[in-house]
Amino acid sequence: MLIVGEKINTSRKAVKEAVANQDSAFIRNLARRQAEGGAQYIDINCGTFINRERELMTWLVEEVHKELDLPLCIDSPDPKAVSAGLAAHKKGQPMINSISGEKDRYRAILPLVKEYRAKIVVLCMDDEVGIPHDAQTRFKIARRVIDGLLEIGTPEDDIYVDPLIQPISTDTVNALSALDTIRMVKEAYPGTHAVCGLSNISFGLPERKLLNQTFMIMCMTAGLDGVILDPTDKRMMALIATGEALLNKDPYCGRYLKAYRKGILSQGQA
Amino acid sequence: MLIVGEKINTSRKAVKEAVANQDSAFIRNLARRQAEGGAQYIDINCGTFINRERELMTWLVEEVHKELDLPLCIDSPDPKAVSAGLAAHKKGQPMINSISGEKDRYRAILPLVKEYRAKIVVLCMDDEVGIPHDAQTRFKIARRVIDGLLEIGTPEDDIYVDPLIQPISTDTVNALSALDTIRMVKEAYPGTHAVCGLSNISFGLPERKLLNQTFMIMCMTAGLDGVILDPTDKRMMALIATGEALLNKDPYCGRYLKAYRKGILSQGQA
Repeated sequence: MLIVGEKINTSRKAVKEAVANQDSAFIRNLARRQAEGGAQYIDINCGTFINRERELMTWLVEEVHKELDLPLCIDSPDPKAVSAGLAAHKKGQPMINSISGEKDRYRAILPLVKEYRAKIVVLCMDDEVGIPHDAQTRFKIARRVIDGLLEIGTPEDDIYVDPLIQPISTDTVNALSALDTIRMVKEAYPGTHAVCGLSNISFGLPERKLLNQTFMIMCMTAGLDGVILDPTDKRMMALIATGEALLNKDPYCGRYLKAYRKGILSQGQA
Repeated sequence: MLIVGEKINTSRKAVKEAVANQDSAFIRNLARRQAEGGAQYIDINCGTFINRERELMTWLVEEVHKELDLPLCIDSPDPKAVSAGLAAHKKGQPMINSISGEKDRYRAILPLVKEYRAKIVVLCMDDEVGIPHDAQTRFKIARRVIDGLLEIGTPEDDIYVDPLIQPISTDTVNALSALDTIRMVKEAYPGTHAVCGLSNISFGLPERKLLNQTFMIMCMTAGLDGVILDPTDKRMMALIATGEALLNKDPYCGRYLKAYRKGILSQGQA
């Protein structure tokens, strides 16, 4: 399971303030804590600073690289901000979040994937339908984008398909659509990966953590092998360790037992 | 999700004592508490009393029927004890736990299914291989037994296939084998159901509840729609309500919201 730490995102108020004040210590500490929680990639998103996004993306990438040796997930709908982040990225293989079936984004991001040999998140949406209601249409869009990525030589192993999670409060079929999309993509392209953020599933309902945690296990069962989340959430990290042991992704349950001895599993129960 | 309460089982020490002493109040209270927790069937198992099983099965069925209007799950490997339980069963459609591919058991239980129009649990095992290691062989046995049940006129809706859960501590592929068996049976016979007990999955490992709960969600994702468990376990019951909301089995999330208002979901977090 590829763990992408989601916390450096300026849609969160404390992060927005820290970025506005160029509070290097705050950002570096937030990166460090996510790495300690188990993040393998740190997502960087400063999309709320519409006119300064490129400059701030560069600053954030440099600051986090000063603190950690982890690679980063450059997260923006603006190809120019993505390009700025990639240019500043120096440690390991960067990840781009994201490409989609939207024509402009597709055309602008595709060459960056090739130039930087980046891992790439594929959103199952396009200009025509936006985010499709059903799994079939999501899969159709994913297939189009994946085929384009494969054509320019992207290894399947670098491709992470995001089915896009919509709340079950607006339509109770939304979780099933996402699960089916994951299954269909993994069946058609077994070498690719599936990734998503989880919390949108529970929007508008009470006990959101319970829904998010339960949905995480469902997605893993369907084939999810990457996730964008808060790696300092101990219960969620305990569930991932447990899920991997059950899904035969943890030889001899070794990581599960190690997590137990470190006290991570029982902390996660609280 | 069909909830079968598992607690009236003489392999549990307190139950064994209560049955030995014909402690009617204890048994009736245990039945009542399971019904209040959400059980739709109450499992009755007194298999540890090898020489008195028939007589005690009759007594237990009568006692529980005095307390509750729920139907019961007559649970024994001995067809004569099953027959005794069925003869005493008076409220609703009984469930037999279980038939299997084992020749003697198959021959003896099949006519009881027909005579009592019972729901029937199908264990994926036979004389030749015991409990198979892989999903393919389990499915093959299930298919043989299901076809036999259909031939005598059993409705698909009365058939509950139990993939048989083996601990991941002895082989890390065991959870996947069970999940794949559930998927294969539901694909081949969409009108049938899948049921299992969960706790065996975690045998030999620490933090068993975490494993059992996580595996429950995985099984639901694969198509499980019946479970034999302790319905007084609030966390597990909260997870089932959450899982059904996510899997589009709860129109408008109505039962989920009702469970929330009753405080069941947050109790389940503890």
